[in-house]
Amino acid sequence: MAHMAQQEGEDVARRAFKLKAFVEHLQDCVSSLERCSKPVIAAVRGGCVGAGVDLICACDIRLYTHDAWFTVKRLTWGLRPTWGRFNDCHVYARWVRELAYTARRFDAREAYERGLVSAIEPTAEAMRDGALKLASVIASKSPVAVCGTKAALNYSRDHSVEDGLVMQRIWNMAALQSEDVGIAAAAAAHMGGRGKTQPTAFSKL
Amino acid sequence: MAHMAQQEGEDVARRAFKLKAFVEHLQDCVSSLERCSKPVIAAVRGGCVGAGVDLICACDIRLYTHDAWFTVKRLTWGLRPTWGRFNDCHVYARWVRELAYTARRFDAREAYERGLVSAIEPTAEAMRDGALKLASVIASKSPVAVCGTKAALNYSRDHSVEDGLVMQRIWNMAALQSEDVGIAAAAAAHMGGRGKTQPTAFSKL
Amino acid sequence: MAHMAQQEGEDVARRAFKLKAFVEHLQDCVSSLERCSKPVIAAVRGGCVGAGVDLICACDIRLYTHDAWFTVKRLTWGLRPTWGRFNDCHVYARWVRELAYTARRFDAREAYERGLVSAIEPTAEAMRDGALKLASVIASKSPVAVCGTKAALNYSRDHSVEDGLVMQRIWNMAALQSEDVGIAAAAAAHMGGRGKTQPTAFSKL
Amino acid sequence: MAHMAQQEGEDVARRAFKLKAFVEHLQDCVSSLERCSKPVIAAVRGGCVGAGVDLICACDIRLYTHDAWFTVKRLTWGLRPTWGRFNDCHVYARWVRELAYTARRFDAREAYERGLVSAIEPTAEAMRDGALKLASVIASKSPVAVCGTKAALNYSRDHSVEDGLVMQRIWNMAALQSEDVGIAAAAAAHMGGRGKTQPTAFSKL
Amino acid sequence: MAHMAQQEGEDVARRAFKLKAFVEHLQDCVSSLERCSKPVIAAVRGGCVGAGVDLICACDIRLYTHDAWFTVKRLTWGLRPTWGRFNDCHVYARWVRELAYTARRFDAREAYERGLVSAIEPTAEAMRDGALKLASVIASKSPVAVCGTKAALNYSRDHSVEDGLVMQRIWNMAALQSEDVGIAAAAAAHMGGRGKTQPTAFSKL
Amino acid sequence: MAHMAQQEGEDVARRAFKLKAFVEHLQDCVSSLERCSKPVIAAVRGGCVGAGVDLICACDIRLYTHDAWFTVKRLTWGLRPTWGRFNDCHVYARWVRELAYTARRFDAREAYERGLVSAIEPTAEAMRDGALKLASVIASKSPVAVCGTKAALNYSRDHSVEDGLVMQRIWNMAALQSEDVGIAAAAAAHMGGRGKTQPTAFSKL
Repeated sequence: MAHMAQQEGEDVARRAFKLKAFVEHLQDCVSSLERCSKPVIAAVRGGCVGAGVDLICACDIRLYTHDAWFTVKRLTWGLRPTWGRFNDCHVYARWVRELAYTARRFDAREAYERGLVSAIEPTAEAMRDGALKLASVIASKSPVAVCGTKAALNYSRDHSVEDGLVMQRIWNMAALQSEDVGIAAAAAAHMGGRGKTQPTAFSKL
Repeated sequence: MAHMAQQEGEDVARRAFKLKAFVEHLQDCVSSLERCSKPVIAAVRGGCVGAGVDLICACDIRLYTHDAWFTVKRLTWGLRPTWGRFNDCHVYARWVRELAYTARRFDAREAYERGLVSAIEPTAEAMRDGALKLASVIASKSPVAVCGTKAALNYSRDHSVEDGLVMQRIWNMAALQSEDVGIAAAAAAHMGGRGKTQPTAFSKL
Repeated sequence: MAHMAQQEGEDVARRAFKLKAFVEHLQDCVSSLERCSKPVIAAVRGGCVGAGVDLICACDIRLYTHDAWFTVKRLTWGLRPTWGRFNDCHVYARWVRELAYTARRFDAREAYERGLVSAIEPTAEAMRDGALKLASVIASKSPVAVCGTKAALNYSRDHSVEDGLVMQRIWNMAALQSEDVGIAAAAAAHMGGRGKTQPTAFSKL
Repeated sequence: MAHMAQQEGEDVARRAFKLKAFVEHLQDCVSSLERCSKPVIAAVRGGCVGAGVDLICACDIRLYTHDAWFTVKRLTWGLRPTWGRFNDCHVYARWVRELAYTARRFDAREAYERGLVSAIEPTAEAMRDGALKLASVIASKSPVAVCGTKAALNYSRDHSVEDGLVMQRIWNMAALQSEDVGIAAAAAAHMGGRGKTQPTAFSKL
Repeated sequence: MAHMAQQEGEDVARRAFKLKAFVEHLQDCVSSLERCSKPVIAAVRGGCVGAGVDLICACDIRLYTHDAWFTVKRLTWGLRPTWGRFNDCHVYARWVRELAYTARRFDAREAYERGLVSAIEPTAEAMRDGALKLASVIASKSPVAVCGTKAALNYSRDHSVEDGLVMQRIWNMAALQSEDVGIAAAAAAHMGGRGKTQPTAFSKL
Repeated sequence: MAHMAQQEGEDVARRAFKLKAFVEHLQDCVSSLERCSKPVIAAVRGGCVGAGVDLICACDIRLYTHDAWFTVKRLTWGLRPTWGRFNDCHVYARWVRELAYTARRFDAREAYERGLVSAIEPTAEAMRDGALKLASVIASKSPVAVCGTKAALNYSRDHSVEDGLVMQRIWNMAALQSEDVGIAAAAAAHMGGRGKTQPTAFSKL
């Protein structure tokens, strides 16, 4: 990319259009994780640098090993195509600013405290097991509900509460007619409402 | 509701309109807490499940007993009419995602760390006392100021900072002409600015 | 201001226009810190009250001494022109509500836990040193990158993720053509990617 | 209302809250026409003044007699609670400004040219017939389609094109499963696609 | 400006920041007409080219002589800092596109048909008289109402209808307490509601 | 599509997801015309029905033969995936409502009066010539300026004026550095500012 920007003799504006297309392509790669209709789990071990941070920010759930570390290095290069998502992902807007301006490293502990991680595991194996277990819990739920939930969370992030409520009303016009509602209700009744649900057989979506 | 959705032989779209009206009614019940011009305090003891979580998310301040627990169970059923507000309420967007996809339980401690609670009290009595004390502190303030603050916080949640500033300018066109401004200033002067204000007599709103 | 509002005999609406202009002026003072194209660091020692809280909320990074304390006192007066920014700054929307309605004091520790501070230092000297060190780290980076990052973070706070990505694409049409990109890339290559970058000589912006 | 505003001795801010509630009530009356799930047709004969203009602006279709006239008189009183909708309704934003600042009369012809009217009829009888005919054409269509269209048009007025497309996708998840789709397709096939559709029997919504 | 962009040897990004500041300054000049709290009337005679079109688009009301002509010439230069406002001003979004891409001339007649003008006058004198008469009609109204109306129209242009209604409620908290409401009501009553109001003496704002 | 919706025995929600994907695909086809970085000209002869209306609404400029006619027929089927764009395209929001609810035909004359067309030509040949001439005028302009203008108009349609101005500032950081600015300025100077510009040789984009 550096060489794309440095090409001699070309008109600044024409180079600008190429760079715009290039950044759009990069952003699109990252966004594809978010557009995926099913939840995506990131498991991070060791260093996670630059584009790596962008990628995990587009995931739904993040697990780290205790020795994972991160840095938003590309600032040093004068490039930052995806602050929008990084900013959203880290709830501490002001923490993000410090990282963004200094490009300093932060570790798994700090990432956890600032809400960027769901769980920290002692080893890579434990993390992989944790990620798979999480995935199988999610897979046991109604896919209509899980995909609907991801769609709703993506939507409400960028809309007002009122808009989010409207979207939920419209979404549920079809979703509440799913056979999954009855299956889940029956399973819940069978479990006596004790907060634990046995795997129920929902059809694939 | 389940039976409403499962009614045989009816046109899918006509059933959809009924479900939409039903969800809108549910949402409206929850939103009424938010529309209430005065702050609403929730005090939670024991389990808080499904619609219960929706209700406390529409309150302004939340107190829990140390043994309170929560679960967003309705995901299992394929129903989630109010993610919009739940998402807003929990600042940890990514924490919300994990809860939303897995529907696992979380306790008062986790809720506190993730910002969903103002205080955790050891017993139900302590919590009730805490809630009442909080209410009486709020009641001692200017009602013009308190209701204006709730209106501003509700508004700024769904608008840009610039829009929030504009709204504050317009709101204060009338609010700053209140007799309460003079009463509060006099009381503050009398207290020597020591950060403690004695109850001052504001008229009811 | 109190006397401006209390002037006898004047038409309520005409007084309202004056108050609106007055509040706009106040807001504009505070917002100037945010409009500043370079990051602004706040260092707080001792009490930070009312307008002081507004000011630090418009800064990019905040450092406190361990004995700093805060209160949003003006609520008691029925005045709150800048909730919009205060709300944005504290990620715990619900924590803000409690403070807003009760106007109680909170200390540096609570501010840190709720994300309102980057670091707490034991003494005023340590804090000043910390602030200066932070400033010199930022100053060693490409000014094109730092100012672009502040512009992007300000923008993405008030826009959807999609809008933030679009803005980043357009911004980078010129920014990626900067000589700083090559300088930073060369420096990074020289450091062997070990996560530490030596000061590189970027021209002033 | 005038007397509500002029009440002596009451605090300005407390009177302000009452006025706000009063205006909200007025706005809600007007908005109820827009919230009505079915299209609303306004038929105007003679003068249409102040609140009357507000009412017709919340309708879907407007018919006038050739001698109808209008004026946004309330400007003269210093009151204008519903510019938002009036502005939307008249596409000529700049025409609206002239009317708003001068409060001059305009007639049916000018209203037609500026897009505020669907048709001008020579007599009150012709207008009533036209309105009823229009209503019966609409009533012959699929109520699922008609109500869905009104919902979509209301929504897209206040949202970006992209948001409007998203809403249409979600809405059609249920609506396209309606039996009305098949009924309408069959009727269209039967008519040979000649652009005229015979009344088809859709069930009530 | 051309020379500012063509300066040799300077870093592209540093030149970009200067150009951004320059365009912001230009936009700010034009926007000052819109920020002016009172309505602004433009009277156009002869050619109105490039920046001239920007200026009149920021005015509230526009009068032309019959021989006025316009062209958005700067497209040819590759510069267009204020499409946002031009687009808003011309209600025919698609007409704007044709003009924008071809930069062709259009005359007063076409401008009138497309809603860019309030009135066309035969001579420069008639236009000046028309503008002054319009100004004096506006000046005879309550300044509280006129300035409030401009504020509302500017606001509702960029907000949803719902947001516009909220803003009107808040604005009227103070505005409806104006003495002008009573003065205007009395004048209206005196005129027997015949749609004509005699000049009433409102105080200056 | 009808058969997709009518498939027996499948779960309503699962069918809903398929329909959503199908509608998204349709919308994406239409939107591709809008996403095209260069202006798109539509030339319509004879009937333009349903999806045809959607397609021309996504074009930048529209030419019709005098005998062209239109109908938004799909309402009759209960399907309308792209109201968002149709609504934007016709500036007469209220005219759109009448067409949407009644699905009546309208001709080229009505389309012209309501702003849906740039020019009406007597014959198909004249229309083709007109379209080609328009295209060659556009092609003679700076491609940097033309594509930038389309990007700006698309953007400002869905954003506030303030957001549009910000985007223009950022866009011009690179665009104003184009060699095209100098070329166009030189050509304009050479023409003596007489409003006519000879073809200048801009490089391809």
